[in-house]
Amino acid sequence: MNSDTYAASGVDIVRAENFVHRLQQSAKRAGHSKLWPAAGGYAAVHPISADRGMAFTTDGVGTKLLVCHQLNCYDTIGIDLVAMCANDLICVGARPTLFLDYLAIGVLNDKICDQIISGIISGCDQAGMLLVGGETAELPDLYAPGHFDLAGFAVGDLTKKELLSGNKILPGHKVIGLASSGIHSNGLTLARKLLPRENWEELLVPTIIYVKPVQDVLAKYRKQVVGIAHITGGGWRNLFRLNPNIGFHITNPLPVPEVLQKIGEQVDKVEMYKTFNMGMGLCLIVTGDTAPIVETLANCGIVSQEVGHVTDYSKTLTSSDLILRGT
Amino acid sequence: MNSDTYAASGVDIVRAENFVHRLQQSAKRAGHSKLWPAAGGYAAVHPISADRGMAFTTDGVGTKLLVCHQLNCYDTIGIDLVAMCANDLICVGARPTLFLDYLAIGVLNDKICDQIISGIISGCDQAGMLLVGGETAELPDLYAPGHFDLAGFAVGDLTKKELLSGNKILPGHKVIGLASSGIHSNGLTLARKLLPRENWEELLVPTIIYVKPVQDVLAKYRKQVVGIAHITGGGWRNLFRLNPNIGFHITNPLPVPEVLQKIGEQVDKVEMYKTFNMGMGLCLIVTGDTAPIVETLANCGIVSQEVGHVTDYSKTLTSSDLILRGT
Repeated sequence: MNSDTYAASGVDIVRAENFVHRLQQSAKRAGHSKLWPAAGGYAAVHPISADRGMAFTTDGVGTKLLVCHQLNCYDTIGIDLVAMCANDLICVGARPTLFLDYLAIGVLNDKICDQIISGIISGCDQAGMLLVGGETAELPDLYAPGHFDLAGFAVGDLTKKELLSGNKILPGHKVIGLASSGIHSNGLTLARKLLPRENWEELLVPTIIYVKPVQDVLAKYRKQVVGIAHITGGGWRNLFRLNPNIGFHITNPLPVPEVLQKIGEQVDKVEMYKTFNMGMGLCLIVTGDTAPIVETLANCGIVSQEVGHVTDYSKTLTSSDLILRGT
Repeated sequence: MNSDTYAASGVDIVRAENFVHRLQQSAKRAGHSKLWPAAGGYAAVHPISADRGMAFTTDGVGTKLLVCHQLNCYDTIGIDLVAMCANDLICVGARPTLFLDYLAIGVLNDKICDQIISGIISGCDQAGMLLVGGETAELPDLYAPGHFDLAGFAVGDLTKKELLSGNKILPGHKVIGLASSGIHSNGLTLARKLLPRENWEELLVPTIIYVKPVQDVLAKYRKQVVGIAHITGGGWRNLFRLNPNIGFHITNPLPVPEVLQKIGEQVDKVEMYKTFNMGMGLCLIVTGDTAPIVETLANCGIVSQEVGHVTDYSKTLTSSDLILRGT
């Protein structure tokens, strides 16, 4: 066990959170009060009529890009990009509808760019989104040969009744964890430092797009679902985004993917849980019986289980008393 | 005069256009037929009811980013970012409403990021947009120290009556050119190569945000305005995006900004016009009398003049018979 942390690897989440907070304060305008309150800030929800809204979010794929470059494998990173955005949209209750991409590269390489785009299109198909626009920027001198960056912008649709604001979550509610496929698209800067190169292929398993399984659950059990958390940058700290007044006991966690176990051999446990998804790519916070929901997810090919429950404010615990709030 | 071209500098617009065409073909799905036909593909317009649509676009600022870095001046690049997106939205007839940013940087530097964001917020204020979301990504190993990338995503609102599809543009219509403030955010890769370092400050003059002046024109003379072209990547070739069946005679061009004159001493004239705005940041294609429109723009502080007129298909000419179509 050494003292590797995500901050030491070059990504300081607390500093980033402070920056975002400052940014939000200075961006605040009167018009912001018209936005609907959306759980965890996963997307901005703008009303287009009294009972209908549109949700907007943007995201990237972190330094997973550099793994693609090293392994010369560019056909799945587009799926990750769509997943990062689409999984955010469903957390506020929206149906993903439209997608736009920003692809920046040193010099346009047809083979690389075609692979990236084919992944984006495949991801959009999975998420039920149309790719309606994008920008392909050639930026020589900014990107090294073969390097590129990717950002995605996603639009979703929802009614006021469908909005998840997080304020209905109460102690006693159940947490259903949906299994991740591996590292997804967070913590790659630390993972690249610690994982031996022969295991890098495991890093490229694409992020699961949870849109259709979650839509199936909502179609049948909408009234039971009070919150959805995408476990993205910040790891399990994402659970706290949903509602500031609650805590979580995670007593029956999903198995940790092998690739994260290998990284975990060299990293403090708290650091792992605040950096990676640790086997849980998305959480549903639900009332009542969880079994029919778990079964519905299984029918969509998603492994899930009741992993714990909501507590009152204070801390998040795994079975081994892992405290993440405030860390 | 040497043979410097934008392609030789590392940015091949024709190759990029071919890539985008291929991308559009493979992205095509049944749902695309529901989009409203929007002039020049400046934005995707998605109907939200029979008579109301929303417009979406994404853009970046090219390697103007590297000029910021070299001059250690980051407070206006955010204005450029908003301008690139907002000026695209007005070309389809939309009112810009919401903005999201993607900011990627090697290591989060508070001073640099605060400057970038303050520019974005100032640009949003100018464009009448709310900054409702964004992603700040720390990507060490991808970006060199002080390097960063920026992408913007903008949302606009319009009624079907307000949509500019470009299909009403006919030979004989007038072209009003709106003066640019300088290079704006296109052709920077070539400019950085050719312009002596002591002139680089001129490259940082922010792109004009034409939203409010154009809204003033539309409020008074909507029926006269049949098309709007943002002169962005591809220079004056952008005029051809509006309608494939027409050409243009530009007989009375606006003065070429000094910074572009300096670059032009070393570049073929055709290359200049297909890379840079050459003094004209936006064009209005109008019917009838242009004088009241030019006056309205002047009242908003925008220099403009009737620069030419629409012809039938074949070629675009300036007073010196500059042919740009197909080059």
